[in-house]
Formats: sequence, C-alpha cells, structure tokens
Amino acid sequence: MKSDTICGLNAVTAVFAKRPNDVLRLYYTTHQRAYVGKFCSQMAEAKRPYRMLEAPEMEKAAGTNHHGGIAVVTKLRIPAIFDINNPIRGKMLLVLDGIGNPHNLGAIARSAAFFGVPAMLIGEGPGNAMPSDAAYRTAEGGMEYLDLYRTRDIPAALNAMAAHYRPVAAALTHDAISVDVVPTDRPIALILGNEETGVSQPVLEFVRRRVRIPGTGNVQSLNVAQAAAVLLHALTPR
Amino acid sequence: MKSDTICGLNAVTAVFAKRPNDVLRLYYTTHQRAYVGKFCSQMAEAKRPYRMLEAPEMEKAAGTNHHGGIAVVTKLRIPAIFDINNPIRGKMLLVLDGIGNPHNLGAIARSAAFFGVPAMLIGEGPGNAMPSDAAYRTAEGGMEYLDLYRTRDIPAALNAMAAHYRPVAAALTHDAISVDVVPTDRPIALILGNEETGVSQPVLEFVRRRVRIPGTGNVQSLNVAQAAAVLLHALTPR
Repeated sequence: MKSDTICGLNAVTAVFAKRPNDVLRLYYTTHQRAYVGKFCSQMAEAKRPYRMLEAPEMEKAAGTNHHGGIAVVTKLRIPAIFDINNPIRGKMLLVLDGIGNPHNLGAIARSAAFFGVPAMLIGEGPGNAMPSDAAYRTAEGGMEYLDLYRTRDIPAALNAMAAHYRPVAAALTHDAISVDVVPTDRPIALILGNEETGVSQPVLEFVRRRVRIPGTGNVQSLNVAQAAAVLLHALTPR
Repeated sequence: MKSDTICGLNAVTAVFAKRPNDVLRLYYTTHQRAYVGKFCSQMAEAKRPYRMLEAPEMEKAAGTNHHGGIAVVTKLRIPAIFDINNPIRGKMLLVLDGIGNPHNLGAIARSAAFFGVPAMLIGEGPGNAMPSDAAYRTAEGGMEYLDLYRTRDIPAALNAMAAHYRPVAAALTHDAISVDVVPTDRPIALILGNEETGVSQPVLEFVRRRVRIPGTGNVQSLNVAQAAAVLLHALTPR
C-alpha cells in the first residue's frame, strides 16, 4: 500500500485537523515532545502506532532531514480526476499548467490556503509536479485546505466550467492586462504556467484573457510562487 | 582577495549590465555558448580570463551544481555601512531585520528589483543573511538593481531617516492594519522580520505602525518571500 509522508509541525497539525483518519503512523523527536500530546492521544484511541525517535531514525522514517522533528505517514492522497459532468464551483479556482518544482507547488498551495482558495486543478503529464512529500512540507499545511483535482486536458476542463469561472492566464506578454484592473465580479479560474516556459500554447489558445503583474523590467519576472501570492492577494474575493 | 561567484544567465547578465568592471573571470558550458559572445568580447577587451568548461570543472568553478551553465567571479561586493549623517532617500526602502535564509534574501531582492525598490538596508549580526553566492543566484540579477546598506542598529537608522520614510513593520498581530489600507502618500520603509520569530522586539518598539496581509487563517502565515512580494506590489509607488 502506498502512502504519503508529511513532515513539519504545521503540516502535521493540519492533517490531524482535517483528516485524522488518514494518519497511519506518527513519529517525533524529543524536540517536539511538548506539542505532540494531543496527537498521541488521538493515535492511541485509534490504536495506531506513534513513537519518539532519535534523530538518525527520524531522518530515515521521514525520508528527509528537513522533518522539523515530526512526521506522519498517511493514506496516499491522489487528486480526483476532473469530471466534466461534475464541474468544480467555488469563489476561485487555481489551475496549475506545468508547475514542475514540488517546492513551488507546495509554496503555491500554502498561499492559496492563506487567501482562501478552495480548489486547485493540476495538469497531469510530464513536467507537472503532483503532491509529494516535498510539496506537503513546503505547503505548511496548506494542502489540507484545498480540494485537489487533476486533468490531462485543461482547455476542456475550463470549457466545462465556463458558465461559472472566467479563466485568466498569468503571462508576461504586453497584451496582458495589469492585475490591478482585472474585473473580479465573477469567480476567476487563475492559470499559472511552467517556471521556464509559462502557460502552454493549447491553454493560451483557449484563454484569451491574460494578466500580468506590473513591474519595472529590472528583472524579467517574479518567481512563480511570488507571482502566485501577488495574483491571489489581488484577485481572491474578500 | 575575496570575491563573489555569481551563477545563472539572468544574474550574470545583470552583473555585466550594471558593473562590468567588477567581473574578474567568466566561465560557461557549451549549453550557454549561444549567449556568451558579447560577454566574452567584453572580457577579451578588458584582458580578463573567460573559458568554456566541461560540467565537472564548471561545478567546481561555480561552487555549486546549480550554475545554469554560466558563472562569473566578481569583486566582492559588501553592503555599505549605513551612515546616520548621510541617510538614504528614495521612493521606498526595504529593511531586513533577521532574514536568515540566503534563498529568502535572494528571492526578496528579486521581487524588490521587479517592483523598483531602489535600496535595501540589512540588519547585521547573527541570524542575518548577507549577500552570498546562493542569494545572488536566487535573485536572478535583482541584487544588481539595489543599493545595499547594512547596520547593527535598525531603530537608530530608521530614526535618522524619520523625516523621509514612514516605517511600517510586517507583523501577524491583530493590531496590524491591512496592507490594503496602508497610506502610501509618503515613502515607506518596509521592515521584514525573521522567518520564525518576525520583526525583533527593539524594532517593534520603535515602529508603531504594523501591516499585515489579510488571510483566512487556514494557514498561519505566508512564506516571508511571498509576503514580501505581496507587500511590495501593494505599497511600492507606481
């Protein structure tokens, strides 16, 4: 049986808050002893193993030395396949079209949760990072507050949701309008593209509305996770 | 003689654009051969060495495998010591009070350059990252567009600039006002604190005005580099 390993106090706390039944095993070091009491009680009640480990064993159990002294092994969470007959509806949708770096995926999920985005649709295929241990850790619990979907055909998915979401693609091109003047009278599906190459051609052909962050040109662009935070702050309804 | 090693095409391009005389040596791999012609001419003219290297030698010369196929060794750049008799003046000042991770420093510098912040004042002492190879690489050239200063006494520095800048400290506290309503009628000195512990107590005692980014509470905070991007986008005069 496959599983996820989720590290760090914030990420683990969010898992216990949102899906405690998915937690299969809990590990911690003496460093986090003061914070784990409630989690250990929950594990004991569910008759599931929890254990304090020395640093070398912890690193092995967590699969990384960036464990922050606490890790859980959880039931594998796989994003649901997007179903055009059962489209997503919410106040905003984040669409990832080629985010390849799991740390960027995690950082974007953290920002999305911070700003209250309810759902994320992830492109499936080569070059697309899916939730992973590194992404969970970087998300600091943010992943737990997002409904996750995946699709091999982002244009078809956006088309199926056209009555609800207005799709807007982040772009560096000069035909893109400034984030400061994007209308937010309707829910937005915000599309972020690959770290190097941006939003893919098929998606750009479907999405006519482009958004950019106004800058000086001193550096060409923001890092995608920084750009995501700026766009989400500006476009998420408050 | 000490030096910096600056890697990556964007960072190297910015160094050649802003301080070509500081470049002591240029290394590149065949991967970047198409982009280095102008740089090689400049080096030849200045009678300074440039050389194409194989991957293993490149990794050694760059001191990292994240070199992106190009690296320059430059004259060491040390931020100027802030002088209270010669205070900084500009449309905005970014103040780093305890940013410890060089990648965060670099990411913040990238965003600052993107949004046109002219200067950065860095706290000096344990726990403060100073410009380093990792920071230059992450900044993607952004560091070259910033005047860099350092100080051991941020409150004294802010006090010396009180006639010009209104200091505003990023905080998670509820007495902080939303970034959406911070007045921008005067130049702002925006203070960012440590990744774990935030802005330090002496600085908070001096700076009464606090700013926060409104969020849902689903996750406690944004990553500091993401928070910096959101704050800079909202507060930098356009």
